[in-house]
Amino acid sequence: MNIPLSSYPRIVIIGGGFGGISLAKKLREKEVQVVLLDKNNYHTFQPLLYQVSTGGLEPDSIAYPLRKVLIGYENFYFRLAAVNEVDPNKKIIYTNIGELTYDYLVVATGAETNFFGNTEIEKNAMAMKSIPQSLNLRSLILENFEQALLTDDYHERDALMNFVIVGGGPTGVELAGALAEIKKGILPKDYPDLDTRRAQINLIQSGDRLLDGFSDRASKKAEDFLEELGVQVWKGVRVTGYNGKTVTTKTDLVFESAAVVWAAGVMGANIKGLDSEELIVRGNRIKVNEFNQVIDFPDIFAIGDIACMFSEDNPRGHPMVAQPAIQQGRLLGDNLINLIENRPMEPFQYKDKGSMATVGRNKAVCDIGRYRFQGVFAWFVWMFVHLFFLIGFRNRMVVFINWVYNYVKFDREARLIIRPYKRDYSQFKD
Amino acid sequence: MNIPLSSYPRIVIIGGGFGGISLAKKLREKEVQVVLLDKNNYHTFQPLLYQVSTGGLEPDSIAYPLRKVLIGYENFYFRLAAVNEVDPNKKIIYTNIGELTYDYLVVATGAETNFFGNTEIEKNAMAMKSIPQSLNLRSLILENFEQALLTDDYHERDALMNFVIVGGGPTGVELAGALAEIKKGILPKDYPDLDTRRAQINLIQSGDRLLDGFSDRASKKAEDFLEELGVQVWKGVRVTGYNGKTVTTKTDLVFESAAVVWAAGVMGANIKGLDSEELIVRGNRIKVNEFNQVIDFPDIFAIGDIACMFSEDNPRGHPMVAQPAIQQGRLLGDNLINLIENRPMEPFQYKDKGSMATVGRNKAVCDIGRYRFQGVFAWFVWMFVHLFFLIGFRNRMVVFINWVYNYVKFDREARLIIRPYKRDYSQFKD
Repeated sequence: MNIPLSSYPRIVIIGGGFGGISLAKKLREKEVQVVLLDKNNYHTFQPLLYQVSTGGLEPDSIAYPLRKVLIGYENFYFRLAAVNEVDPNKKIIYTNIGELTYDYLVVATGAETNFFGNTEIEKNAMAMKSIPQSLNLRSLILENFEQALLTDDYHERDALMNFVIVGGGPTGVELAGALAEIKKGILPKDYPDLDTRRAQINLIQSGDRLLDGFSDRASKKAEDFLEELGVQVWKGVRVTGYNGKTVTTKTDLVFESAAVVWAAGVMGANIKGLDSEELIVRGNRIKVNEFNQVIDFPDIFAIGDIACMFSEDNPRGHPMVAQPAIQQGRLLGDNLINLIENRPMEPFQYKDKGSMATVGRNKAVCDIGRYRFQGVFAWFVWMFVHLFFLIGFRNRMVVFINWVYNYVKFDREARLIIRPYKRDYSQFKD
Repeated sequence: MNIPLSSYPRIVIIGGGFGGISLAKKLREKEVQVVLLDKNNYHTFQPLLYQVSTGGLEPDSIAYPLRKVLIGYENFYFRLAAVNEVDPNKKIIYTNIGELTYDYLVVATGAETNFFGNTEIEKNAMAMKSIPQSLNLRSLILENFEQALLTDDYHERDALMNFVIVGGGPTGVELAGALAEIKKGILPKDYPDLDTRRAQINLIQSGDRLLDGFSDRASKKAEDFLEELGVQVWKGVRVTGYNGKTVTTKTDLVFESAAVVWAAGVMGANIKGLDSEELIVRGNRIKVNEFNQVIDFPDIFAIGDIACMFSEDNPRGHPMVAQPAIQQGRLLGDNLINLIENRPMEPFQYKDKGSMATVGRNKAVCDIGRYRFQGVFAWFVWMFVHLFFLIGFRNRMVVFINWVYNYVKFDREARLIIRPYKRDYSQFKD
């Protein structure tokens, strides 16, 4: 792979997400060679993907070039590469651009959408875990409304304006809220010749509450906010299929919809060679010890969403969100140096900084420590925290400008079909 | 096409560029029905496409939703449609979403890249007339540098870092200048393990001067600026082919390059049914009289790049830039009402507001009236004028922020491969 040999030990990091970047920053100016591999040349700020899908933000303002993160870092190498396999015994990584050996390997590959083996849903529903996927969803939403104008068939038109979001976690809740605001504020103006009141936003949750993992108060309030905005919340309903036209559920409830978003689960984005039964646990995550070390392989570490560390406070592993990744990345930076210099490693202690989700304008829910608050203040806290963790000054400025503009003007201007999604609408015809 | 019948005459505008939008705005609150058709749901600010290709601006900030332009316009209809054909005798437009009759038709379809029949170049070179094309070029540029890291072959690496821009008009000059600045300011930092000094930017012009149509002083100064920035300017060289690897010319000059941009010509984006020999002139433009009326069809008009109006000042038609389109659109708005109300139409008089092009930081050339100026002041004028004509307050803010950031930081952060272009590099291998 054309990485020069070095007298320092080589640490290979797979994945430039929150975990990978936090780790890389910690390794700066240490006596190591660092190779960062990612299949994209940018870091994605995943918590705001739903705003890209709904035209509130430009895709480029929630992405950040990985090469720029490493500017000025001596002995750091970035390679745009998709990893195909790892051989943990030979200590070799196989990628689409060649092989690479490592002294220490850090798997920070994050998570991907979990369709739980339902290939029909996987084929027909939209996922929202990457920028291209979010842009596809943006295009689809807009194309559906353009298409709705073209039909005289009421059923078809309703299906084209019917959103089904499967999964009542933060992603589902935030997307449903944003769509409800678009329905109210933008659709009637953009489509004066379409009865957009008939547009529906359905949020389907298999469990009996939204925002699993949040406090009861946050969960209840999020549901109230969604209902205020006109979202139809279905709890205790399990989706069983979607053939591109009809969503079926375990109950006799069905939905005809041209836009189904699957936000009902994620799983570790594991790599061949590290996916043996002994290494992984539920959700395709790699089991790690308190130092993020992979069982049986003291020179392989996993951090963030892909890693599953069991602890008393988190008997099922840490939540698959940014904070554990950032904190594990930082600690691992120190620990790798400890390991190399034969000092004992520090065990990871998760500092839960809380959870938050936004439903819409002035409507968010926050659980921070023992404080639970909802509404306008929570919404400002949500925005501040997201701006803070967004990488890059320019990105922050542009996102801030957009938010101010969207707030003042009740608008979302990036409703652009730059790359058409080109859905097949024929199945909606009789 | 589901457009309601109206007692008012129906004006159909094909194309939401500068001409189409200026016209639509003039028709607001008049006693007409207006249908705007465009194959995109947004207006593209073409003069800044090269900044998208070079990572200086986000694509979304130079696009503007066409539906938003028409918000609050009574009796206006937008349809996302690609026009296949016009039957000027039956007064019917055939599109991918059905047929539409018109009382008055305005063709404002603009221009497309002219490869002068060279299908090999068309297949292998990059064009830059739309946002997706500009994003493809952005991806390609970045992918080429990632690829350059992977080879030990000097020739291959040089070819991957060799830019060839064909065409010395404003687009070619501006793109070459931007690439030269990237080479100087960004590549060495982003690719410390690549000898980016070997990257070359070649600008090839078939004629004997750059910026045809500009003053001699502007032309000369632009060339000086480009040379200062390290661009290799080749004048009097006509490119004859590009097989994906080698650019051939009429001389014995050849270039090995993985990134060839064709900016050597545009032609009217004409429509089947209006492209008969009697109707069109050189460059595939539709011949119009002084009222922008198409010869023989008093109810069909053409404005902007697609229209060719011969006049004493412009014996070969007006330049294919924004100003004639805007001015013709505005006048035609009045003239259509004159025509409908049986008043005489006003002949078009082009007010040449001048020409400008930017080469780089503090380096632009302006010919405005009898003033010719170059350098820092010209650069500020260029920026101010472009911000002014950009549509939308939010777009202006975001572009302004980006420009200030880029200026202060010598940076262009949107160097993101969001949708890989996936060029086939195999031909560069031995």
